Amino acid sequence: MAGSKFAYVRKFELPDPLLPDTFMVFRLDGHSFHRFSDKHNFDKPNDLRALQLMDHAARDVMEEYSDIVLGFGESDEFRVSFHATDWVLYRCFAIDRSSETAAIIHLYSDVITFLLRKSTELYNRRQAKIVSTLTSLFTSSYVFNWPRYFPDNPLQYPPSFDGRIILYPGEQQIRDYFSWRQADTHINNLYNTVFWALVQQGGETTTQAHATLRGTVSKEKHEILFSRFQVNYNQVDERYRKGSVLVRDEIAEPVESAVIPTSEAADDAVSEPSPMKGKKAKPKREAKSKTRIVVLHCDIIKNDFWDARPGILNG
Amino acid sequence: MAGSKFAYVRKFELPDPLLPDTFMVFRLDGHSFHRFSDKHNFDKPNDLRALQLMDHAARDVMEEYSDIVLGFGESDEFRVSFHATDWVLYRCFAIDRSSETAAIIHLYSDVITFLLRKSTELYNRRQAKIVSTLTSLFTSSYVFNWPRYFPDNPLQYPPSFDGRIILYPGEQQIRDYFSWRQADTHINNLYNTVFWALVQQGGETTTQAHATLRGTVSKEKHEILFSRFQVNYNQVDERYRKGSVLVRDEIAEPVESAVIPTSEAADDAVSEPSPMKGKKAKPKREAKSKTRIVVLHCDIIKNDFWDARPGILNG
Amino acid sequence: MAGSKFAYVRKFELPDPLLPDTFMVFRLDGHSFHRFSDKHNFDKPNDLRALQLMDHAARDVMEEYSDIVLGFGESDEFRVSFHATDWVLYRCFAIDRSSETAAIIHLYSDVITFLLRKSTELYNRRQAKIVSTLTSLFTSSYVFNWPRYFPDNPLQYPPSFDGRIILYPGEQQIRDYFSWRQADTHINNLYNTVFWALVQQGGETTTQAHATLRGTVSKEKHEILFSRFQVNYNQVDERYRKGSVLVRDEIAEPVESAVIPTSEAADDAVSEPSPMKGKKAKPKREAKSKTRIVVLHCDIIKNDFWDARPGILNG
Amino acid sequence: MAGSKFAYVRKFELPDPLLPDTFMVFRLDGHSFHRFSDKHNFDKPNDLRALQLMDHAARDVMEEYSDIVLGFGESDEFRVSFHATDWVLYRCFAIDRSSETAAIIHLYSDVITFLLRKSTELYNRRQAKIVSTLTSLFTSSYVFNWPRYFPDNPLQYPPSFDGRIILYPGEQQIRDYFSWRQADTHINNLYNTVFWALVQQGGETTTQAHATLRGTVSKEKHEILFSRFQVNYNQVDERYRKGSVLVRDEIAEPVESAVIPTSEAADDAVSEPSPMKGKKAKPKREAKSKTRIVVLHCDIIKNDFWDARPGILNG
Repeated sequence: MAGSKFAYVRKFELPDPLLPDTFMVFRLDGHSFHRFSDKHNFDKPNDLRALQLMDHAARDVMEEYSDIVLGFGESDEFRVSFHATDWVLYRCFAIDRSSETAAIIHLYSDVITFLLRKSTELYNRRQAKIVSTLTSLFTSSYVFNWPRYFPDNPLQYPPSFDGRIILYPGEQQIRDYFSWRQADTHINNLYNTVFWALVQQGGETTTQAHATLRGTVSKEKHEILFSRFQVNYNQVDERYRKGSVLVRDEIAEPVESAVIPTSEAADDAVSEPSPMKGKKAKPKREAKSKTRIVVLHCDIIKNDFWDARPGILNG
Repeated sequence: MAGSKFAYVRKFELPDPLLPDTFMVFRLDGHSFHRFSDKHNFDKPNDLRALQLMDHAARDVMEEYSDIVLGFGESDEFRVSFHATDWVLYRCFAIDRSSETAAIIHLYSDVITFLLRKSTELYNRRQAKIVSTLTSLFTSSYVFNWPRYFPDNPLQYPPSFDGRIILYPGEQQIRDYFSWRQADTHINNLYNTVFWALVQQGGETTTQAHATLRGTVSKEKHEILFSRFQVNYNQVDERYRKGSVLVRDEIAEPVESAVIPTSEAADDAVSEPSPMKGKKAKPKREAKSKTRIVVLHCDIIKNDFWDARPGILNG
Repeated sequence: MAGSKFAYVRKFELPDPLLPDTFMVFRLDGHSFHRFSDKHNFDKPNDLRALQLMDHAARDVMEEYSDIVLGFGESDEFRVSFHATDWVLYRCFAIDRSSETAAIIHLYSDVITFLLRKSTELYNRRQAKIVSTLTSLFTSSYVFNWPRYFPDNPLQYPPSFDGRIILYPGEQQIRDYFSWRQADTHINNLYNTVFWALVQQGGETTTQAHATLRGTVSKEKHEILFSRFQVNYNQVDERYRKGSVLVRDEIAEPVESAVIPTSEAADDAVSEPSPMKGKKAKPKREAKSKTRIVVLHCDIIKNDFWDARPGILNG
Repeated sequence: MAGSKFAYVRKFELPDPLLPDTFMVFRLDGHSFHRFSDKHNFDKPNDLRALQLMDHAARDVMEEYSDIVLGFGESDEFRVSFHATDWVLYRCFAIDRSSETAAIIHLYSDVITFLLRKSTELYNRRQAKIVSTLTSLFTSSYVFNWPRYFPDNPLQYPPSFDGRIILYPGEQQIRDYFSWRQADTHINNLYNTVFWALVQQGGETTTQAHATLRGTVSKEKHEILFSRFQVNYNQVDERYRKGSVLVRDEIAEPVESAVIPTSEAADDAVSEPSPMKGKKAKPKREAKSKTRIVVLHCDIIKNDFWDARPGILNG
């Protein structure tokens, strides 16, 4: 073969297997979504269409890869940018940076975490293969399905995401990982909800709104919302307060549509058949033909969720 | 902070830096592109639109990441399944392994390799970050630009790619890596060109065509093409014979359009301004405002290409 | 600083942390111990002095590193070379691969496994640091203590060992790892005991002895031992049948010597104070002043051993 | 096989190959050698016997592993320990830590670096195997040969070392690595030589000596040495100023002893035949029977050393 004298370069392709029988958490993060959400005029504090699109892409990934047993999409961290010599974007909820000129605040809807069953042998647990393939499929579905959620708002440029795998040896760590993300979602969304109420309804500048919130604890934020804007935070849509929880639920055989667990999820779950059902994937799907992926907006910090779904951690 | 007792889970995020000052080859590969090309009726042996779309996505990635100094897109390997001892199976999907005859042959147009300068500090050389981000942007651009190249052929479902990084310590290995890929391109395309001529113009079945070609060397394939179909293989479009070579060429200051190096490349290079030129990327682009990415279809095995562009290996 | 322009070379020292909260199994293996045991005339089938020296070195390592919660030393695998299809070759060095008969058989006494508690932060879990330091200390103690066990048999040349770390996420895997090693010890030692009885007492050649044993199951080996040599294998010293199990047992405060669990272990455990107790290590030792390392030769496959020592897996 | 149901635990043994065709620098470092040198009354500022023992062990390692093309042993960094609430040992030559009570200064003679040829396939370039085996053999030889260099000073306890591999893609980095270490050796030894002259001959306390040296540059240290103690630093034994350089030099066939390059090296090189020449290693040694390892104390920062030995970097 003409190329054979060059083929030695293949020996530089080193193996990168991940430790067997260990949970894989795969976390995807939007790349420069601050700019992306600006350019596409995402609603604040949360953009429902953008969240639904994230859920859709996540569901597509879970349809294709049956070893993903759980997905969690967040109304991400807010990021406060300050007017300073160099603009710095904080990825944190430490509110007081001593600056007086916080300018912008966002919930980006750009983080999604997948949990792969610990026994998965997907791609022989090769790290780069898994990271790149899942990131690619999510991205592809995001762009592919954009027009469906933003029919009047064409995509300006191709968005991108980055992904990473984190290994966890034990169940408690998995519980704590998802608790960490959902607690974050709560903190961010509460701050954000009050902040934008102050700006959009209260007429404060963003600088004033940050000043108003500086140092307030959770209870005080609830009170501001309620006393000034008649909003009971606990009645805010759970989607925003809890994030999106994607699980593979068993469905009763004859009536597929009967199993949608909540009215919210129903809307999400009634998607047309995934176009990705190709030859290769089919046998898998037939083997588990009695499950479907549903999108919930429920608590995943307490035990109830997990007790009801022992298969997530026992797989 | 509410989430702080869970935050320990972050310590499981281990560092994955790649060796400094070492060339990074990043290779992207279409996922299940056999099915994808079937579903979208790609022309055989090569689909020009699909190749141009690959080039476009590759150029978008290079626009965004200035540390990529070279791209190479291939009319991929052919994949044939045979029942024979002396035939090489290329990553085959073996439609019918028990048959005596090859069943299917394709050029997929789904492999692209990028070379990052060895001194790159992109994302601090974090492996998963680089692999996932580049894969994601390429995928995103591919889907985003699909309608431009296939206006009457809507995308059926979201395609995906996988990527991997291979490190090479030396220049010779980089030369040999790209030689290996281009030699492959040549071998595959020659076989494929004759094969489809036999089928489409010669009226052979695919089984017959494989039988005709079995054991033939390069010279004999040229002769079949010429004597039976009056095709001089050396006059087949270089795009198919050489693949696509994307480089960053300096351009003369005042007349941007004057620098297109070849008439072939001209067509590819005259794209509208990339929509990705955002705030963040701008400074980079200004710094190198006198380069643009061009698509060539030239030899990269011999020295000429490299001698004319010392910056590729010296960066 | 004179050296500062060269100091950039440090950036090539990449981090190599091991996954947190995961069991580390550290296995040491003698390098070329076939030759080593020959040169030093080790007794066959087992050399008591060599085994005791291994135990001593293992204990020195455990004295120094309190995060090692278990050690297991084996009368290693036997290694036989056969010319047969149904015989398993254990890591063999194949003295005569073309012969029909095995040429040499040994128990090498050269493998030791340490278990580190899963929460250990030893050297920040840096892989090369742990592997090299533990290997080095074991080797050092082995050479240092050689004259004590082989007073009339001076060391001919410096022996060496290699080590590796294997991570296990779960308790069951740890149980199975040690079961695997002890089951191996049993199989090897039984074969070996019969083999050398046939040779040393039965007057067979090694070739004949292998032929005698070929195809025999465990029960048949027991019978040969008993009927021909009046040896009840179950009464063979447990050290040889079970290997050495090193654990950290709590000791009653006032009478240190009273706690030796078995008469066998007593002999091993009554060593003079370790000379390694240096300033740095002292605080650690004081904190756990009520434990000492004992050498047992007990079953570690069944539950009893583990049930009695929950700290090994819960650490 | 009885153990077969447990054998799955082997699948957790993951591959750890190092990048091909890349230089491996293997650096060994004494573990707690501050205490070790104290306990064994090493001479200050340098202990000749300890240095020769290091060289001997290094040579044993190079005898056994022909892919090691260079060794460099240092009169290590000095480490200053201060009287402070917590004693801190600095591994640096930053003299002024604002403390007035520096107490101890040492040259430890405990660091050795080996360079493996970039093409080496030793143990298939498996990282843990190489790191552990080389560390072990060095340690073993150090303990084994101790009595030869310290006949009246028995080893008090087993010393240990740790090792790590650093990969370098290019020749210049290798040059710079060794320049960095030798520049360090120079700086440390100069400081140390003056310091101990002030203490041992000048009657200063260690605190006074540090005060005297604080802020002095190289030239001033030379002057103190010369004016107060009539010592021309440039005439101090090169061993201390340059460290030990171990290379494999070709030797003239008939008269082996004629090739010793310097009188210093001669003494080092005339060792009895290595006891490690075993069956397995022999063929290798015969193939390169015309080389021997010599210990030099020469400059390795300038080009001369490397120009004379092109094989070190070209292997």
